[in-house]
Amino acid sequence: MERIEQHASYGGYQEVWKHASSTLGCEMRFGLYLPNAALRGQKCPVLYWLSGLTCTEQNFITKAGAQRYAAEHGLIIVAPDTSPRGDDVPDDPGYDLGKGASFYINAAQEPWATHYRMYDYVVDELPALVEAEFPANGARAISGHSMGGHGALTIALRNPGRYRSVSAFSPIVAPTEVPWGRKAFRAYLGEDREVWKQYDTVELLKSAVERLPLLVDQGEGDEFLEEQLKPQLLRAACEAAAHPLRLNLRPGYDHSYYFISNFIGEHIAHHAGALR
Amino acid sequence: MERIEQHASYGGYQEVWKHASSTLGCEMRFGLYLPNAALRGQKCPVLYWLSGLTCTEQNFITKAGAQRYAAEHGLIIVAPDTSPRGDDVPDDPGYDLGKGASFYINAAQEPWATHYRMYDYVVDELPALVEAEFPANGARAISGHSMGGHGALTIALRNPGRYRSVSAFSPIVAPTEVPWGRKAFRAYLGEDREVWKQYDTVELLKSAVERLPLLVDQGEGDEFLEEQLKPQLLRAACEAAAHPLRLNLRPGYDHSYYFISNFIGEHIAHHAGALR
Repeated sequence: MERIEQHASYGGYQEVWKHASSTLGCEMRFGLYLPNAALRGQKCPVLYWLSGLTCTEQNFITKAGAQRYAAEHGLIIVAPDTSPRGDDVPDDPGYDLGKGASFYINAAQEPWATHYRMYDYVVDELPALVEAEFPANGARAISGHSMGGHGALTIALRNPGRYRSVSAFSPIVAPTEVPWGRKAFRAYLGEDREVWKQYDTVELLKSAVERLPLLVDQGEGDEFLEEQLKPQLLRAACEAAAHPLRLNLRPGYDHSYYFISNFIGEHIAHHAGALR
Repeated sequence: MERIEQHASYGGYQEVWKHASSTLGCEMRFGLYLPNAALRGQKCPVLYWLSGLTCTEQNFITKAGAQRYAAEHGLIIVAPDTSPRGDDVPDDPGYDLGKGASFYINAAQEPWATHYRMYDYVVDELPALVEAEFPANGARAISGHSMGGHGALTIALRNPGRYRSVSAFSPIVAPTEVPWGRKAFRAYLGEDREVWKQYDTVELLKSAVERLPLLVDQGEGDEFLEEQLKPQLLRAACEAAAHPLRLNLRPGYDHSYYFISNFIGEHIAHHAGALR
């Protein structure tokens, strides 16, 4: 493991680390914000952030402005890359499949199955690494944007007890029902739609055993709202399952990091409350 | 003139515009933040932001997190590109000459002299355009980073009465004395060092007619501190000229936008006070 960036920020450090991932069979990078409390040796809770299509570990750490709030609340933030990387890793010409588009699942179909195991990476390998190497106290939260919002919600729903809180910006809540998800799931998982359902928030809500409240922000000016995001399906699924949901529809806001930067402070405050 | 981006942000809009610049002989882009007050038709003061080497109009608007503070204080922020652009514009293989590296001067040497007139663009054409097309009240401030900090300081010093306030992050304060400046000034201006002095903050301070206080933030962990930035020369020049200077040396901070994002709120508050 090697630190490749370190920038002072709000009394702590924004860093980038790289390491050899055994789960993914490639070298991976992740952003790490260490608040001042962590520098002083205090063990801190960790918020995991999953980014959206086309992103690397850089987008969130350079654009979201989360460091200010993480510093305020004494949170570590870990922001991994969005897929396996490297010359040996299969890719696709589309921006919505292959590198930068893992959908945070374990692929079952070739050529993807060897490297595309981001679900296991995010659930197991990355937290084990973080908790072994950094001053983390074992309390975890998870959030993300778009494809990463889908990742955060599905991972939290499938792993009761593992996260104290979960939130999402502009998440893909029903990937089995929308073009982005269908394309990716067909390639990564094959044609069996029953298999797809284990990675679909709306489906998972039907059998969720833990009532972890979902905090979701969605811009009403989002260019992907109607075709890909469909927050009304999330609302209906939560109502049907009596699952607690705070869905903030934000007039005028789009799918960009400008939207995330406006409301990341509220999400971090939400997580900090649960992580205390 | 055409709007090519518009993103809701803190009750206003972060926009990007393009227009044909007569000064530069090419199409130019600039970022424009319009606070809520401007959307409601109120005329607002304008802060001009000049970015550093290699930047476009995107870096500041996506990474600095300035919108929050501009919204709070009711400021418009205009962030132009850092040089003329386009296939007809001469360039150089180095990152520190040609496109992305105008140094905000009017070039006198070929092949640069036709297009590289960013001083005139920033001082005259851009404010005239902004004040004609947007709800600007005529009150101006100027700031920038590194090469853009040099631009902000020299432009303010050379144009008494034109700006209510000036500030800079990590500015090149003595370009005639450091490698970045010497390389660029030799190419753009020729060998006569007397000509160079009209674009050098330390030199301009010797004859400044207006005592506009300079607010400067400089990271002490900045990788360019010793060779290119030399804030001690600024301090000495201000002391010699009895020119008011607030020089904040920030332990640990580097040359990146992480540094800017940490202190941009203080700079915007400073400008807002002067612009009221």
